[in-house]
Amino acid sequence: MNDRIRHPGLRAKRMSADDAAALIRPGMTVAMSGFTGAGYPKAVPQALAARMERAHGNGETFRINVLTGASTAPELDGALARAEGVELRLPYQSDPAMRERINAGTLDYLDIHLSHVAQHTWYGFFGEIDVAVVEVAGIREDGSLIPSSSVGNNKTWLDQAQRVVLEVNRWQPAALEGMHDIYYGTALPPHRKPIPLVAPDDRIGEPYLRCGPDKVVAVVETDAPDRNSPFNPPDAVSQQIAAHLLDFFAHEIQRGRLTPQLLPLQSGVGNITNAVLAGLASSGYRDLTAFTEVIQDGMLDLLKRGVVRVASATSFSLSPAGIDEFLAHVDSYRERIVLRTQEISNHPELVRRLGCIAMNGMIEVDLYGNVNSTHVAGSKIMNGIGGSGDFARNAYLSVFMSPSTAKGGAISGIVPMASHVDHTEHDVMVVVTEQGLADLRGLAPKQRAQRIIDRCTHPDYRPMLQDYFDRACRDSYGKHTPHLLDEALSWHQRFVETGTMRQ
Amino acid sequence: MNDRIRHPGLRAKRMSADDAAALIRPGMTVAMSGFTGAGYPKAVPQALAARMERAHGNGETFRINVLTGASTAPELDGALARAEGVELRLPYQSDPAMRERINAGTLDYLDIHLSHVAQHTWYGFFGEIDVAVVEVAGIREDGSLIPSSSVGNNKTWLDQAQRVVLEVNRWQPAALEGMHDIYYGTALPPHRKPIPLVAPDDRIGEPYLRCGPDKVVAVVETDAPDRNSPFNPPDAVSQQIAAHLLDFFAHEIQRGRLTPQLLPLQSGVGNITNAVLAGLASSGYRDLTAFTEVIQDGMLDLLKRGVVRVASATSFSLSPAGIDEFLAHVDSYRERIVLRTQEISNHPELVRRLGCIAMNGMIEVDLYGNVNSTHVAGSKIMNGIGGSGDFARNAYLSVFMSPSTAKGGAISGIVPMASHVDHTEHDVMVVVTEQGLADLRGLAPKQRAQRIIDRCTHPDYRPMLQDYFDRACRDSYGKHTPHLLDEALSWHQRFVETGTMRQ
Repeated sequence: MNDRIRHPGLRAKRMSADDAAALIRPGMTVAMSGFTGAGYPKAVPQALAARMERAHGNGETFRINVLTGASTAPELDGALARAEGVELRLPYQSDPAMRERINAGTLDYLDIHLSHVAQHTWYGFFGEIDVAVVEVAGIREDGSLIPSSSVGNNKTWLDQAQRVVLEVNRWQPAALEGMHDIYYGTALPPHRKPIPLVAPDDRIGEPYLRCGPDKVVAVVETDAPDRNSPFNPPDAVSQQIAAHLLDFFAHEIQRGRLTPQLLPLQSGVGNITNAVLAGLASSGYRDLTAFTEVIQDGMLDLLKRGVVRVASATSFSLSPAGIDEFLAHVDSYRERIVLRTQEISNHPELVRRLGCIAMNGMIEVDLYGNVNSTHVAGSKIMNGIGGSGDFARNAYLSVFMSPSTAKGGAISGIVPMASHVDHTEHDVMVVVTEQGLADLRGLAPKQRAQRIIDRCTHPDYRPMLQDYFDRACRDSYGKHTPHLLDEALSWHQRFVETGTMRQ
Repeated sequence: MNDRIRHPGLRAKRMSADDAAALIRPGMTVAMSGFTGAGYPKAVPQALAARMERAHGNGETFRINVLTGASTAPELDGALARAEGVELRLPYQSDPAMRERINAGTLDYLDIHLSHVAQHTWYGFFGEIDVAVVEVAGIREDGSLIPSSSVGNNKTWLDQAQRVVLEVNRWQPAALEGMHDIYYGTALPPHRKPIPLVAPDDRIGEPYLRCGPDKVVAVVETDAPDRNSPFNPPDAVSQQIAAHLLDFFAHEIQRGRLTPQLLPLQSGVGNITNAVLAGLASSGYRDLTAFTEVIQDGMLDLLKRGVVRVASATSFSLSPAGIDEFLAHVDSYRERIVLRTQEISNHPELVRRLGCIAMNGMIEVDLYGNVNSTHVAGSKIMNGIGGSGDFARNAYLSVFMSPSTAKGGAISGIVPMASHVDHTEHDVMVVVTEQGLADLRGLAPKQRAQRIIDRCTHPDYRPMLQDYFDRACRDSYGKHTPHLLDEALSWHQRFVETGTMRQ
């Protein structure tokens, strides 16, 4: 008796990953599960990559379009990229092999808001989904699916794909059952209704994914861990950034613009936001809430201490130690964590209603508050925009954070003009580096510029930036957003040519 | 008996515009009514400007911060700008005298999404509102206010201001009464609820503005028309743009991605969108809906013919002939037009729920689909972002339209890199010029670039743009979004130096 595959008809569809991969043919559009290294299929993509390599060895072309929730892991993005098997990839990714090919120009990448992926699929903007490959934690007697460690776009993939391949991963904790909230009330316009969620812990759906058993063409059993990157304790720069932001929160509470419960927190993935979470824990906050994308180790810790009361997300992204902690106290966490589809976790309607405090990293910000989250020197993709646009545009507070320099000081995080814009001057309220915090609310462009120079810029770059700004204020064609166009991108050009933005 | 001021207490507060203007002192933050040249105060701003000029003549400084709904008219923005009386202006404006000072660097302008203005005021991000100056069509017995030809932010101004000056404008049709729908269900997070609107014609509020009579410090009677710019019939270029878009709609209907009723239309103000509206009328469409900001002459015509069944907006912007038409058939129009506050007409929650088709003008678009709606050559403001971001980000379809050239061919509307970004590559689906239409949905950056070059670029600039793109694909630092940073803004720089982007 297989306790993870309790539907007899689906049990009968078990097969090897190789056989399941053989159902995917060149040119297909394949939608896969996976979000920030959790809940992605572990076996079929690797078997598929092996088939692609064999085909390429025989002089045949075998490439597919790959859609996911967000980033996955070497077993998926890495394997398919190294097999030269991806024609088009969307949305967010962070795999080194994939990134290398995107930036070499041999692989097309479509970087879109994470909340838009599902609806653009429903609208038919990406064409037909030929096959979905979705990891689940189990299959119930009635054929409904116990979601895995991420939900992402899985509801949409199962619903929209012509054929479905399920990976049932025994490694995923059986205790995940009941944590998920899959909302089936979405519709296409003009039939949409308000989404009935008014608090981060509201449950508005059901704990299982629906999937017609007839659609399922293969069930593959796996027993393999999620990516589980180890957790790095925050470094000094991240702690300084966090300290500035915590000072700001305290100031806003004092001014009466926030209560001590703040508002639902959204935090991007990474070192800086982990430092912010740690800082909240040590600053006496209690009963906060999170309405975010990802549950990291830091969030588990806050939940455990009661600093955060409830957290809504679409995925876990835990270290091995975080997994152990989660499993050891799973009954407590199950009550206080809700995992949703990513069109709900990131929905503009909900982000605006809840009034989230959106805290995201960035690559660079310019004098006027335009933020680049995705590109190095305007042309090389780093990862992607992820959900930062879903949250920042609609948040109560939009905060962007970065060290003031990168690459040992060769790159300034504050530049005259952003080399790519993902968040416009209209969407950026607060900028933080280890140097300080610039509150841009209510400021016109030149006021923003001086504040960013004074508060956020590294001393090594501050005179250069002040000099640019002063000369732009004197010589610019227009003086609303002063720029010297023949110099605005010269810092980036110097970096490309000499390896440093320094003069 | 004054039939427009039916509340005795408020009737007793009547005074001259000069006396009312004397209540506004230097340094104050003054919130005024007005949206696209409709419903702005006609008398107090001019009296205030005269006081400012006298003060400046005496060597005193008299400047204020001015908040509005959107653009107003010479009697407000023009008069205050010419009096050098504005310290900070927000949000959208389009006045020549104001623009001149903003671009001279002597007046600070904060260009923010129109749906954000009200909530940022509630949040306290703009500080205290000292005085509101709001035009109304009348005051009822109970002190409630009959809104004028625009609603804009008036609910917020009346609610948030310390003191209120009302202008009761007898010129405004009494028949406006009952057309408005003022929603009082808004709240600050964490107390927000879903907005109960599921169709453009849903009425979710009340027809009158509330205002505590004690707050009102002055009532000024006026009898003066709105700006009422004459309506220009669409030119040939606008008609070509409209024709491309109408072909696209027909194609989408054929593909089953739209029904013949389309989805609620949002259209920016101007010649091109008027041509689109006219094109819809002559293409056999019936029973369409509009969820937009402004009712222009073209929309009245569609309502009259039954092409559009109902239209939701926050303001009128009619020509003198349009006004006459409206008044002649006001009872019919009153049933089919709803005027809302601008935080509702432009609300992301509603735009996404309804699945609007957002059609907005632009200044330029770059190879990769980044749109500049606001700046000439990256530094000079034209008008502002208006509601285009509220709609484009959340629309079912986001369309940006422009002639392929401007200034007699000296400026290309398609450039290597946008000199300012208001709508990012993540938010732009369709680009249209008189040359053709580029459907960017589902395309990666380099695919977008080639399509925009092929379909939208003027033949005079096409070889230059193809040459840039080809060389960028060969020589760019990264090949995801190929750019040559030392050349990316050279077209704009050439325009600044020589008056043309041509080589």
